[in-house]
Amino acid sequence: MEIVTYVDNLWILIAGILVMFMQPGFMLVETGFTRSKNSVNIVMKNFMDFSVGALTYWAFGFAFAYGGSTLGGFIAYGNFFLEGDSSTYFFQVVFAATAATIVSGSVAERTKFSSYLLFQPFICGLIYPIVTHWVWSGQGWLTDIGFVDFAGSGVVHMVGGFAALAGIQVVGPRIGKFDSNGKPLPIPGSSMVAAALGVFILWFGWYGFNVGSALAAVDVDLAAIAVTTTLSASAASVAAMYTSMIAGKPNVGMTLNGALAGLVGITAGCANVNNLGAVIIGIISGIIVVGSINLIERKGLDDAVGAVSVHGVCGAWGVLAVSLFDTSEGLFYGGTSLIVPQLIGIVAIGSWAYLTSYAVLKVIDLTFGLRVSKEEEIAGLDVSEHGTTAYGDFILKK
Amino acid sequence: MEIVTYVDNLWILIAGILVMFMQPGFMLVETGFTRSKNSVNIVMKNFMDFSVGALTYWAFGFAFAYGGSTLGGFIAYGNFFLEGDSSTYFFQVVFAATAATIVSGSVAERTKFSSYLLFQPFICGLIYPIVTHWVWSGQGWLTDIGFVDFAGSGVVHMVGGFAALAGIQVVGPRIGKFDSNGKPLPIPGSSMVAAALGVFILWFGWYGFNVGSALAAVDVDLAAIAVTTTLSASAASVAAMYTSMIAGKPNVGMTLNGALAGLVGITAGCANVNNLGAVIIGIISGIIVVGSINLIERKGLDDAVGAVSVHGVCGAWGVLAVSLFDTSEGLFYGGTSLIVPQLIGIVAIGSWAYLTSYAVLKVIDLTFGLRVSKEEEIAGLDVSEHGTTAYGDFILKK
Amino acid sequence: MEIVTYVDNLWILIAGILVMFMQPGFMLVETGFTRSKNSVNIVMKNFMDFSVGALTYWAFGFAFAYGGSTLGGFIAYGNFFLEGDSSTYFFQVVFAATAATIVSGSVAERTKFSSYLLFQPFICGLIYPIVTHWVWSGQGWLTDIGFVDFAGSGVVHMVGGFAALAGIQVVGPRIGKFDSNGKPLPIPGSSMVAAALGVFILWFGWYGFNVGSALAAVDVDLAAIAVTTTLSASAASVAAMYTSMIAGKPNVGMTLNGALAGLVGITAGCANVNNLGAVIIGIISGIIVVGSINLIERKGLDDAVGAVSVHGVCGAWGVLAVSLFDTSEGLFYGGTSLIVPQLIGIVAIGSWAYLTSYAVLKVIDLTFGLRVSKEEEIAGLDVSEHGTTAYGDFILKK
Repeated sequence: MEIVTYVDNLWILIAGILVMFMQPGFMLVETGFTRSKNSVNIVMKNFMDFSVGALTYWAFGFAFAYGGSTLGGFIAYGNFFLEGDSSTYFFQVVFAATAATIVSGSVAERTKFSSYLLFQPFICGLIYPIVTHWVWSGQGWLTDIGFVDFAGSGVVHMVGGFAALAGIQVVGPRIGKFDSNGKPLPIPGSSMVAAALGVFILWFGWYGFNVGSALAAVDVDLAAIAVTTTLSASAASVAAMYTSMIAGKPNVGMTLNGALAGLVGITAGCANVNNLGAVIIGIISGIIVVGSINLIERKGLDDAVGAVSVHGVCGAWGVLAVSLFDTSEGLFYGGTSLIVPQLIGIVAIGSWAYLTSYAVLKVIDLTFGLRVSKEEEIAGLDVSEHGTTAYGDFILKK
Repeated sequence: MEIVTYVDNLWILIAGILVMFMQPGFMLVETGFTRSKNSVNIVMKNFMDFSVGALTYWAFGFAFAYGGSTLGGFIAYGNFFLEGDSSTYFFQVVFAATAATIVSGSVAERTKFSSYLLFQPFICGLIYPIVTHWVWSGQGWLTDIGFVDFAGSGVVHMVGGFAALAGIQVVGPRIGKFDSNGKPLPIPGSSMVAAALGVFILWFGWYGFNVGSALAAVDVDLAAIAVTTTLSASAASVAAMYTSMIAGKPNVGMTLNGALAGLVGITAGCANVNNLGAVIIGIISGIIVVGSINLIERKGLDDAVGAVSVHGVCGAWGVLAVSLFDTSEGLFYGGTSLIVPQLIGIVAIGSWAYLTSYAVLKVIDLTFGLRVSKEEEIAGLDVSEHGTTAYGDFILKK
Repeated sequence: MEIVTYVDNLWILIAGILVMFMQPGFMLVETGFTRSKNSVNIVMKNFMDFSVGALTYWAFGFAFAYGGSTLGGFIAYGNFFLEGDSSTYFFQVVFAATAATIVSGSVAERTKFSSYLLFQPFICGLIYPIVTHWVWSGQGWLTDIGFVDFAGSGVVHMVGGFAALAGIQVVGPRIGKFDSNGKPLPIPGSSMVAAALGVFILWFGWYGFNVGSALAAVDVDLAAIAVTTTLSASAASVAAMYTSMIAGKPNVGMTLNGALAGLVGITAGCANVNNLGAVIIGIISGIIVVGSINLIERKGLDDAVGAVSVHGVCGAWGVLAVSLFDTSEGLFYGGTSLIVPQLIGIVAIGSWAYLTSYAVLKVIDLTFGLRVSKEEEIAGLDVSEHGTTAYGDFILKK
């Protein structure tokens, strides 16, 4: 190989390492936004997301995404257990683990651990890989119709977010989330500092996610992608904070989710939009996420961390935004060719992730049960599922 | 472009990502050293430091620093909203955000959130960019007189530290910091583990800060900069710990600030001094920071995290140290040409940052008020400014 | 130099920065697994591990490992205080600090701070450097007999783990670890979230540790090393979790230590085994670590974080595994040439680290005393050794 290839590969490796580090980011956001009696359970789910995910993706997930042969652009096959080339596995598996771990937070505080583990191989090994085959394999049907998703607002975040939507519907709301009139009640999280650290870690890792998706370091303008990513996230966290002030004081949960929303929103178009486009995408992401979180709650759904809004809704917005802000083919630059493909992609990815996840989770629910008992939920999953507590010598509220 | 340029740019990108990660480092140091009733407020300030900072720097901060045209070496103009080239924005904006966020910690636990937000555009968009123009634009008056500051002991840390000094003077000490005789009282922080994690994160990010300031990876000796950075930080944390033992037991706050002091102290000279020079600079940084923190407190000033001493005082020491330890032009190697430029730079940067910050903060104080009410301060800013608490289910002392 | 060399050096620098970041990983694992009354002490030990370690390694540790001249392949000399070339110091010192900091956790909660500091220069400046000379200097006796340890299951982790074993024997178990019949009692840690964050940080840094040990980026297959590392850690955390379920519910401490065990286990062979080999090495690591932790406890030894099992025992397993799974010379591929060298290496490194550490610690114990008084231990080292507490405004259990 030539040196250019080694430099490209070096950046892909480093970017993959940054994306892997998003795992503790998710873990901290989820434990921070939820109660300390369930923190060990979240830790365990996050470790299993990545560990079971990596093994599943090695065994067959990678094969269904990038196996070499394709069944009509719908699913790939070949290279099971990475018997052939495994050079691109690392960068791909950290993306797969990201999609998988998004679900974990939404269904937190009431989901049975053993049943959750059953779902992991499906999302990491089948549901997500198939979508990547559609878009990123070079053989997929969505690529064929002109769909564009540079770093995965749709491929990764919509998949995680719509699977999470299925999850919260099947498992139902936490005890105490709604009063007897169905009015949502706040459930304060155990640590806003942990949640904020998690968001900063995710933001940090996102530079690997977005800029790494160039899959090269030579003959590409990596800095431009870092700039759009930074501007969108910044605009979104400011926009979400001000939007939250409509209801009162500047809200920390909304601001943190706003930053994530801006990152999700720019992910599809980070290499295709200019800086002004990135700022606008971010502002809209920050407004959308606040509205979506409130709307979902008013619909009687209980998303413990807001992941459906952050990843699902803003993921869809990010995909759509490409058709508006792409500097060569976007609507605001006189192009119209992307609108139909992007809309088809949103519907296809969202439906696929939602319906398959719903089906799998429903079957798990009907067979093994997806939810812990009322007593276990009230006691906290740490004690009931893991026989321990997260903060051994701190005194906690009941 | 040639491959050499891409390799250089790749390193600058990665270094910028590391510097961006210093943001949660500051957040953790600040929340760790202060009380948990103000943690959400610090989180919010840190997210706004970076977000508002990035937007401000995009709109006009970058233009005033590196806009292309110069007004007599004092301020640049051009390339507003990055209409032209934005390739160097990312590496520059993370430095700007670092300077801006330093102030946040010093004035913690009593500053009004809305007023703090008003200050951010000034430091990130005007005060700091002008100093970078003086030193790093290639057009500045300080460069013309021979001033040297490789990675920003002066440009970044003195600016942040002297702005912080203005901040604590305008806002005044926290309730309970001094007894009726003016004797300083300890205010224990909420988590030394968080503070220590923050310092380690800052140390990690500092390799991006210092080694990245080479602005190249080819034809430079990057490893040498990593070595001087490591040795100075190590020597300073050891020196600060032993200095703290004069007053009793090995003190964790002083040790942590000692490590930061050593990092600040070596920043200006990290590429110009040898390893022994780095160790000596570090030892002196560690001693200075302990003395400065104690002195500032005895002067009746209340710096909640020690940032004036760490960034302001040790920043000045770092700039001065170049004139002593530079291996070609330093005093200890027989050179004298750097002494006057470095002293002029210290006075100019320190005065500029202090006076402009003081003026802006004083105007904010006289118009909107910089400080929360006594009741709000006692209740904690999390409840009074954000309507929430950071640690929802932990039981805390009153 | 040619561009290839700069690209190689850039990767070694970045990998070194990642390995440096393992320091807060260890800090968080150690504070998380132990009680909050000793957290400041652990923070202080970790900062001194790195700081004193870096200075010691600069003064003479590097010289004894890579000084240029060798005394019969046993110890090097030359380049004291890095008077000559210091370009490889940074990557080496972060490994040295890793070996040194492993001991800290095992002996936590009862070791005298000043005495602990005395031990640091020995492990960082003498015990560890000598082993690196044996294996990685190109001049060592273990290299001569054909011993292979790509990234340091033996050189780094066995050294740390066997020194830790000596440490827990000399210092003795914590008050309350065993009941009057010698039955081990659980001592709940202060934060499983901190411990989990620490493990994720270590996992992240391990990509620098293992992939960086290629000491090049050009003409090597870095991605393959990232894949084996990922698969072994994943397999091990799953295996440890299921092994822990033999005794009851899925255990978080075992799962976290399982991930680390898989990382330690693959370190020696990460560039020499294939993906299936990595999975098997990981599974066995995960099983071994659970058994070893239980066995050590039943032997009346008190390892506060499990470091002897994770680093010592799984380090030895990792070294041995090379002789089994090396794709060219391993037993399962028909080779036998590695078995004797690897066994000799295990015995030599383990004995050396254990015996020298035991001797040094015993002398410290007999002269200055290695352990705090009973009163100090019960009060907690934070109060007794540092005059403070880690969590100022949290209410803690007695």
